[in-house]
Amino acid sequence: MRIAVDAMGGDYGPGILIEGALAGARDAGCHIVLVGDKDTLAAELSGKDISGLTVEIHHASENIEMTDLPAVALRRKKDSSLRVCFELIKRGEAQAMVSAGNSGAIMAVGVMVLKRMAGLERPALALVLPTVSAKRTVFLDVGANVDCKPVQLAQFALMGSAYAKIMLGENEPKVALLSNGQEETKGNEITRLAHDLLKRAAINYQGYVEGRDLYSGVVDVIVCDGFVGNVALKVSEGMVDVMRTIMQGALKQSFLARLGYLLMGKPLGEFRTKFDYDEYGGAPLLGINGAAVISHGGASPRAIKNAIKLAHRFAGEKVNEHLARALAENSELLSFNVPRQAGAS
Amino acid sequence: MRIAVDAMGGDYGPGILIEGALAGARDAGCHIVLVGDKDTLAAELSGKDISGLTVEIHHASENIEMTDLPAVALRRKKDSSLRVCFELIKRGEAQAMVSAGNSGAIMAVGVMVLKRMAGLERPALALVLPTVSAKRTVFLDVGANVDCKPVQLAQFALMGSAYAKIMLGENEPKVALLSNGQEETKGNEITRLAHDLLKRAAINYQGYVEGRDLYSGVVDVIVCDGFVGNVALKVSEGMVDVMRTIMQGALKQSFLARLGYLLMGKPLGEFRTKFDYDEYGGAPLLGINGAAVISHGGASPRAIKNAIKLAHRFAGEKVNEHLARALAENSELLSFNVPRQAGAS
Repeated sequence: MRIAVDAMGGDYGPGILIEGALAGARDAGCHIVLVGDKDTLAAELSGKDISGLTVEIHHASENIEMTDLPAVALRRKKDSSLRVCFELIKRGEAQAMVSAGNSGAIMAVGVMVLKRMAGLERPALALVLPTVSAKRTVFLDVGANVDCKPVQLAQFALMGSAYAKIMLGENEPKVALLSNGQEETKGNEITRLAHDLLKRAAINYQGYVEGRDLYSGVVDVIVCDGFVGNVALKVSEGMVDVMRTIMQGALKQSFLARLGYLLMGKPLGEFRTKFDYDEYGGAPLLGINGAAVISHGGASPRAIKNAIKLAHRFAGEKVNEHLARALAENSELLSFNVPRQAGAS
Repeated sequence: MRIAVDAMGGDYGPGILIEGALAGARDAGCHIVLVGDKDTLAAELSGKDISGLTVEIHHASENIEMTDLPAVALRRKKDSSLRVCFELIKRGEAQAMVSAGNSGAIMAVGVMVLKRMAGLERPALALVLPTVSAKRTVFLDVGANVDCKPVQLAQFALMGSAYAKIMLGENEPKVALLSNGQEETKGNEITRLAHDLLKRAAINYQGYVEGRDLYSGVVDVIVCDGFVGNVALKVSEGMVDVMRTIMQGALKQSFLARLGYLLMGKPLGEFRTKFDYDEYGGAPLLGINGAAVISHGGASPRAIKNAIKLAHRFAGEKVNEHLARALAENSELLSFNVPRQAGAS
């Protein structure tokens, strides 16, 4: 399998991305196509150990900046490293791509080049979260769509269910909408309408869960719009910051607390690993005709390595076929206001 | 000062509420009016130490259940303990009230009996959150309004700013909207329109903050709709659950980790205290012509005690006069779609 890496995206330049991509290639056993300015990439690659790996450089003359609007990425920069990654997938020269670039641009260019799946209004970004139980939870949309219609949330639920079957190994994943309470009287206008749609969908729909359930493991899939999803993740990060600050404060307080902190090393380390973004690497864009994993701009080499592994698994397990089938099986339910899309899955 | 307590609200019955109310009365130095079934309350009160306190029982023949819809509270149960609390404020027989009952009903009955402030569309619930810095942050709306218009978010911001001046002692509180990123290109449709309004408001408006900033102390007031506010708080609670579970898991792992946990007692205790709901007790309903603090259904005696103290401070510092002034000073900005209200502040 060949995985294209947008080697010019991200906050810290190609060096970090290449380091992570090579580690990912080694772990996953895939070929890597580094996309970007050929001279820059060749220079960055020259000092690296690539023994046993197949690494190609594919030239692209332009870069999408983090501040570029999606329209710029779409209309002006036609030879951007990001776009070339998607073109490689379209032509069958790569089976997946990873980018740590501008996520709005990734989504816009990905949809333009590879097209949405038949019947789908909007792709969504899905993360697999750890929980206090042994189970994990698929959470989407984590940022691709800030304003969603009810039918779009319902479509996210269908895709999330199909994705959870593969990623979590659940036969009948429990799917829920994120709301402000579990009772049917809760929810806002959008979630209430999505709730009515999902009660008729051919998935194991459970109704509403609360923010608390993001980490309780009570359901396998939690669905919300990308605005709420972003807030929920960032609040979680904020709480981890709080915890870290308080623990580090302990180090300054007294010898006994310092000793305690050291002895607590193992559980604290487990906590950090479990809730460390790097461990997950990135989120796949569900709903386009291709495998694309988005990592965040400040991704570390370890995050990129894990993003490569996720992209490899996503393409290898043919996740998109499962997503397309879930959408097709519920097409009647969702078709009342879904415009027909061009590219089929 | 006399504070009315809805002694029939809450999940655990009058005993817990009375215990908390008496402790609050002792700390705040206020009189307490227990509202509810007189025989039940007299029986509950009989075993309690009320030396030095002024405690009255005011009979109310009906209770609002947690499952009652606001319409039931409004139209059918005209002698509910909740409604009688608000009637006591209206008649000047109490200066504030505390309820741990059904929050939808509290809001609906409070608005009906006491009326909204002039020019205000919707009241909001405000919490004062701890942060990793020495500062605290006012966060609203935490659940009163699930679907909000831009002008309503802007009004929450004005009230939040006035509230922060008193509660945090800031002269020019920094006010922000909660969004999915700091850049002006972020936000959903509602926040973008509210952002445009707030840029012209006579407050120290700073633009967008992210979910992470709920606990960073970077601004003094963070505004969102009640759906997002509920999710943000519940996600925070979920993260605290995660940390507790992991720490407690450590106790089972090894003697050294157990020792570490014990030695870390002080910082862990500080963490628990800082993020313990009981410490805050409740959230005032900002924007009605009276002082009402809402505690959650499962409130402990300590939470009720702190809710009484908060209600006492809210009424004593005449918070509502400041809120009304903030709204009046920006009435031109906000009046384009605000219907006139009956009761003035």
